Amino acid sequence: MGSNHPDSQLYPHATGAAAKMVSEHSSEQSLKLYSGWFCPFVQRVLLVLLEKSIPFQYIEVNPYLKPASLLSLNPRGLVPTLQYANKPLYESTVICEFLEEAYPSSSPKLLPQDPYERAYGRIWSDFVTSRIIPAFHRALQYQVTGEGNSEAGFGEVKGEFVSKIREFTEAMSSSSGPFFFGEEISMVDLILAPWAVRLWVFEHFKGGLELGGEKWTERWGAWLKAVEERESVKATTSEREHYLPIYQRYADDTAQSELAKATRKGRGVP
Amino acid sequence: MGSNHPDSQLYPHATGAAAKMVSEHSSEQSLKLYSGWFCPFVQRVLLVLLEKSIPFQYIEVNPYLKPASLLSLNPRGLVPTLQYANKPLYESTVICEFLEEAYPSSSPKLLPQDPYERAYGRIWSDFVTSRIIPAFHRALQYQVTGEGNSEAGFGEVKGEFVSKIREFTEAMSSSSGPFFFGEEISMVDLILAPWAVRLWVFEHFKGGLELGGEKWTERWGAWLKAVEERESVKATTSEREHYLPIYQRYADDTAQSELAKATRKGRGVP
Repeated sequence: MGSNHPDSQLYPHATGAAAKMVSEHSSEQSLKLYSGWFCPFVQRVLLVLLEKSIPFQYIEVNPYLKPASLLSLNPRGLVPTLQYANKPLYESTVICEFLEEAYPSSSPKLLPQDPYERAYGRIWSDFVTSRIIPAFHRALQYQVTGEGNSEAGFGEVKGEFVSKIREFTEAMSSSSGPFFFGEEISMVDLILAPWAVRLWVFEHFKGGLELGGEKWTERWGAWLKAVEERESVKATTSEREHYLPIYQRYADDTAQSELAKATRKGRGVP
Repeated sequence: MGSNHPDSQLYPHATGAAAKMVSEHSSEQSLKLYSGWFCPFVQRVLLVLLEKSIPFQYIEVNPYLKPASLLSLNPRGLVPTLQYANKPLYESTVICEFLEEAYPSSSPKLLPQDPYERAYGRIWSDFVTSRIIPAFHRALQYQVTGEGNSEAGFGEVKGEFVSKIREFTEAMSSSSGPFFFGEEISMVDLILAPWAVRLWVFEHFKGGLELGGEKWTERWGAWLKAVEERESVKATTSEREHYLPIYQRYADDTAQSELAKATRKGRGVP
């Protein structure tokens, strides 16, 4: 990998609301987040940091260029990588839970206090990573032309993706909303939010998702609206035009990210 | 699925030391574990329950038969499923962390108290599930005959599996042992233990793993010995003869478990 990697040419920094957030987190802090502005896994961590008002320093890196500063912390050279007390942490879900535990006086709490509810939230956070994201990418990267592929095949992967969204929605609190557990946002909402606010890629590249008008789509729609309007979500979102060339490569199935390659092999989140 | 499923004919209950453990946990308790005696994911949960001396009722089910008692708790019909205060929990790693949180006065603590250490342990627990177990199954299920397959191909998947064990070993405490963090056993040890004590399947079916005599294998050997000798591990292990027909089907790549099927598709732990 290096500067000839196709994804190494991507736009170099955050734009729009996210540029403002980056500039507000550019001064030296002991807690440092090595970030790629476009990366949904990074966005998970940013959402937790902002929701809990934890001071941190944002450091933009292009993970495809594998800069030495990043490799010295994380041999796989992936973002997000967190530097805490000069020690590295990676894996977005691990970092998110770490922030909840390492900053106990920061509010709001993003994990329920009841152990059963915490575990229930973790089951569905895990469902996002192990089921929803792979299905998102199988649908986005599907090509209707090519050996064994067809419009019907696309309908099938799209239908599988929608069924995962439905399953997630049906696990939400049915008595209150708009968030997963009710009125208050929590970890499981933030774990899914980065992909939820990228659903426009299906409209743009793939003719839409066609959720249909079944009962569950009301609860989903209320959740999605609340997430889209959340300040932390808006503050971590760049201008759409700069996501476009990145998602164009996913839609054409030519992206070379670890996730794109894993999806081509039929695997899950690497 | 049903009684004609090839794995539905497996031996019906625990044997040896595990039979004694089952009989000691057969009386009614509000905390119930729906278990398959042969399942390594179940063994993770049993290890945590036994290490922490948490009272529980062991309920043997054959997950391939999808009994109604199990399906009513877990629509996917998978083990382990935990019933706590009449509510279900599943996903072995979620259950293990739940037990740590729901029984705060049970000792020993299996997660370090320091948030960074907790997160570090979670990174490597996740590595077990996302890297080591898929590599274990790719090597075990590899067939040297068949389209595109060869002895060299087997050497490659075996080498990949060994390299994952090495990576895990190199993440362990280098200053103390025998366990991952040092003298005391912790969650990350228990998360890997069920596969560690099944490594004999490679000797039995695949000619051995050939770890070589490099420096890291000493640390690995010390870890493995400590895990094999742990009372909780011995108490959750049945007689080898009853694992044999199950692992024979993995070695022949004819097993029909969800994990076996995912491995054939090139995917990870489903």
